[in-house]
Amino acid sequence: MTAPASQLASPEDPALRSWVESANDPAGDFPIQNLPYGVVDDGPAVRIGDRVLALRDVLDAGLFVKKLSSDTDFLIALDVGWLNGIAELDPSAQTMLRQNIAALLAHGSASKARVERMLRPAADCETAVPFLVGDYTDFYASLHHATNVGSMFRPTNPLLPNWKHVPIGYHGRASSIVASGTPVVRPKGQTVASDEGPPSFGPSKLMDYELEVGFFVGRSNPLGESVPVAEAWSRIFGFVLVNDWSARDVQKWEYQPLGPFLAKNFATTVSPWVVVREALEPFRVPGPPRSADDPKVLAYLDDPAGSNLDITLEVHIASAAMREKGMPPTLVSRGGFRDMFWTPAQMLAHHASNGCNMEVGDLLASGTVSGPTKESRGCLLERTWRGTEPIALGDGTERKFLQDGDEVVIRGFCEAPGRPRIGFGECRGVILPAKA
Amino acid sequence: MTAPASQLASPEDPALRSWVESANDPAGDFPIQNLPYGVVDDGPAVRIGDRVLALRDVLDAGLFVKKLSSDTDFLIALDVGWLNGIAELDPSAQTMLRQNIAALLAHGSASKARVERMLRPAADCETAVPFLVGDYTDFYASLHHATNVGSMFRPTNPLLPNWKHVPIGYHGRASSIVASGTPVVRPKGQTVASDEGPPSFGPSKLMDYELEVGFFVGRSNPLGESVPVAEAWSRIFGFVLVNDWSARDVQKWEYQPLGPFLAKNFATTVSPWVVVREALEPFRVPGPPRSADDPKVLAYLDDPAGSNLDITLEVHIASAAMREKGMPPTLVSRGGFRDMFWTPAQMLAHHASNGCNMEVGDLLASGTVSGPTKESRGCLLERTWRGTEPIALGDGTERKFLQDGDEVVIRGFCEAPGRPRIGFGECRGVILPAKA
Repeated sequence: MTAPASQLASPEDPALRSWVESANDPAGDFPIQNLPYGVVDDGPAVRIGDRVLALRDVLDAGLFVKKLSSDTDFLIALDVGWLNGIAELDPSAQTMLRQNIAALLAHGSASKARVERMLRPAADCETAVPFLVGDYTDFYASLHHATNVGSMFRPTNPLLPNWKHVPIGYHGRASSIVASGTPVVRPKGQTVASDEGPPSFGPSKLMDYELEVGFFVGRSNPLGESVPVAEAWSRIFGFVLVNDWSARDVQKWEYQPLGPFLAKNFATTVSPWVVVREALEPFRVPGPPRSADDPKVLAYLDDPAGSNLDITLEVHIASAAMREKGMPPTLVSRGGFRDMFWTPAQMLAHHASNGCNMEVGDLLASGTVSGPTKESRGCLLERTWRGTEPIALGDGTERKFLQDGDEVVIRGFCEAPGRPRIGFGECRGVILPAKA
Repeated sequence: MTAPASQLASPEDPALRSWVESANDPAGDFPIQNLPYGVVDDGPAVRIGDRVLALRDVLDAGLFVKKLSSDTDFLIALDVGWLNGIAELDPSAQTMLRQNIAALLAHGSASKARVERMLRPAADCETAVPFLVGDYTDFYASLHHATNVGSMFRPTNPLLPNWKHVPIGYHGRASSIVASGTPVVRPKGQTVASDEGPPSFGPSKLMDYELEVGFFVGRSNPLGESVPVAEAWSRIFGFVLVNDWSARDVQKWEYQPLGPFLAKNFATTVSPWVVVREALEPFRVPGPPRSADDPKVLAYLDDPAGSNLDITLEVHIASAAMREKGMPPTLVSRGGFRDMFWTPAQMLAHHASNGCNMEVGDLLASGTVSGPTKESRGCLLERTWRGTEPIALGDGTERKFLQDGDEVVIRGFCEAPGRPRIGFGECRGVILPAKA
């Protein structure tokens, strides 16, 4: 049995409401306008309010429109254990899928009773890294972050001459990208007491998080071909929150001259729900205006339409003691993604500008998102200014860097008058002690 | 029909001879002691002399021993389009496979007539990147290379304080690893006339190769667990030649502070035949002795057994004009892998020392292999000393850096008295003009 093709609804309509009551909570992250994709039980799923809908269940019930359910690529996509299959669908099939799901979940859906039986409480669902990530790249796109970190290491010359010309990025490690909730073992590494060494090998003493926003590539370019910056936005599948865990003491010793390596590649946590480009379109903003002193952007990076997003980002920390006592985590940072110097479209166009082949499922992250104020700094290195200004947690203890048992919770959401809030949920991870 | 289990032979026996006559050529790369694996027609294959044997053909003919052909993992491994399946087999099954192939190809094989019909001329076979590479890491393990390059950029302080303590490495791009013979499009990028900029965007003018040796990981470690250095050698599946193509002008401008990025990730070429660890065991040597001034190696990196290899490495260049005239390429560099400061086991143990999960098929490359003499420098940046000492090609032209149409051919082989030569074949690629 297949539903008629008229069963489509536009989740881009801000007035659309769902029969899933929790989706209509104005403080919730997942209204019917969001419908982010994730992976549950090895298959694609959608989040709505506090519920999860597995797409294979919808398929088995014959609730997809005929054109989709007769599309072989679509049927294969639902059998892939990641979202890569959905991202590789024709754009029109992706739109149809999203509108089909919206119709099923919208007020007045004739299928409500059947879909309702399929919904699972999100709290009971184990989520996964949503894409099979071929390559992961991390940028360094926040002017405030680059200036803060640069001024610690080079007080007289914080920003290197290339920074405002070229979106600085480096390759990260794909194998150690982990799902939100995965504990992170404190890494061991070489660290030094003085700049010249000698090093000793042991657990990192300066564990840090980095608050980032990442996006998954939704369309590939062949090796040797570039991606025009004007097309780059349309090649992004969707966005997630990223925690680029960092061992600062390891980083300081190892990073010259080839960049961060073991200081970063022991774990990178991503949030489970990929908020698609379409849901974020209303919150899309241009990059910040360049000042008169700033260099003119090179043509291959010119992104006048803009692809920054007005996302509010928060970092919260809960110590083991706080979690035992049932205390909420302490808000330690609140900033925004709208003022990033380099935009997502610029990152993608730059990455492919030399002919590097971007593949569906590749993850590109922004680098630490820091704003102009102390409170909006996106990592402890900056937030505590190398530990010289510790921050207080709700249990009365102080933090310069992360301690064993600390849980870091990143949240992000978009808000605008007259629109439902579009949220990312949470990206979390607890630091476990180093292995003996 | 299944062959009896007695049909095994030890390719580790230097006296073993093959009925494939080209395998017994003393100047050849592929005697029966080598038997490297590659991928031909989407399936695992073995190279012997100037012939290729597809393993699925052997399976279909019932020529594998019973224990192998009743092993489900083995049957699946032969259906995988890369060598990952073979590398994931039990070590005892891998040994049996190698000995079974050796028995089929050895003098006196009862199956000679049947196997002979399966052999294909290597010249007619299109080879592929042999592994599905999850992550690719490039090291910087040659003291001569690091000192040469460092002295160009920091004449008074060529070697940074960390270099002799920590194997410096960085993550490369897995998607742009290409098979030998794949043309390489000259990349575009930002380059500067002066150190401070401003940059312009266009084709790189300083295209270079880097002569490297790479190895594929044959056994994974879970995230959070390390790899003891004493075990690292046994976790290497095999070795290949690597050309880490580099755009020096792009690299110079972009690499600070996070390392090389677009200067490298447009292409990395690997040779097609993976020479397994077992075949290289007779050529295994300790790393060079540390001098009295050198720091003592940290315990987690101590590799007294040694895992360097006595491989002779050569770089040859043929211009388009030379190839048109049928001239052989000009030898521009000859060096060796035996004197690398950091050994393969040290690279692998270091990479996993922070708990980073290494996966089967990951590629780790050594970084440019340079020796103490001019002739043994492994890239043009060093070989021509930034273009100040051009080298002559066979057609009478000079090279400071690579020109469009130049083909770079890397060769490598191991030789020792009383032993058949074990070679790697070739790693080649032609530079194509930048796209309009």
